[in-house]
Amino acid sequence: MHKSRLAGFIIDCQTDDLDSAARFWSQALGYALKPATNPEDRLYRLLETRPDELHMEVQQVGHPSRVHLDIETDDIEAEVARLEQLGAKRIERVHTWWVMEAPTGQRFCVVRAQRPDFAANANFWNR
Amino acid sequence: MHKSRLAGFIIDCQTDDLDSAARFWSQALGYALKPATNPEDRLYRLLETRPDELHMEVQQVGHPSRVHLDIETDDIEAEVARLEQLGAKRIERVHTWWVMEAPTGQRFCVVRAQRPDFAANANFWNR
Repeated sequence: MHKSRLAGFIIDCQTDDLDSAARFWSQALGYALKPATNPEDRLYRLLETRPDELHMEVQQVGHPSRVHLDIETDDIEAEVARLEQLGAKRIERVHTWWVMEAPTGQRFCVVRAQRPDFAANANFWNR
Repeated sequence: MHKSRLAGFIIDCQTDDLDSAARFWSQALGYALKPATNPEDRLYRLLETRPDELHMEVQQVGHPSRVHLDIETDDIEAEVARLEQLGAKRIERVHTWWVMEAPTGQRFCVVRAQRPDFAANANFWNR
């Protein structure tokens, strides 16, 4: 038994200028940019969403630009196994998360629980 | 003067089997599928999100699968012009909306206001 839910969306940008990319998306969508707070943030800029909203991040990547979604969970392995049963495939483990591919071809990530109301509001799975 | 904001995300699926694609994303993300209600829905299936949440849709497309975002607005032309000033490009007008491309390469759409709290909560632009 574990929990999961949609955590948010990552705007993957193939760029050497993350600041410009983050500025565009901040202004286009009307969300402020959170200040970068630690060295690990150098490839990410977070948009300022409310605590009860989805995460929104702008990420500097090497692959072609796209948008991907993250699923957050309290049990990475159980959630990856559940998604495999639905037809998704494991692509690559990165640090604590898994990159997966949907049967319809989109890449997405399975990450540790991120948002403060996860325990209260995530979906509960018996398998 | 006009308003806009992020409306939601469309999961574009290059598939001949929209029902299977919609079922995967419904189960993966833990949102129920809304019943299809009219003939125009044959290329779309909506996920059941709360009225104060972003729209989430699964769409059957001919191009490679991806995820794209929609920006909703009360003035399509003014919003497209605003986004052009930020560096985005017009790609194609489709029915009432515009497909645009961000400076970072992602395609996205500018659509008419969709969510019930648009007037109260959208961003207000002076240009």
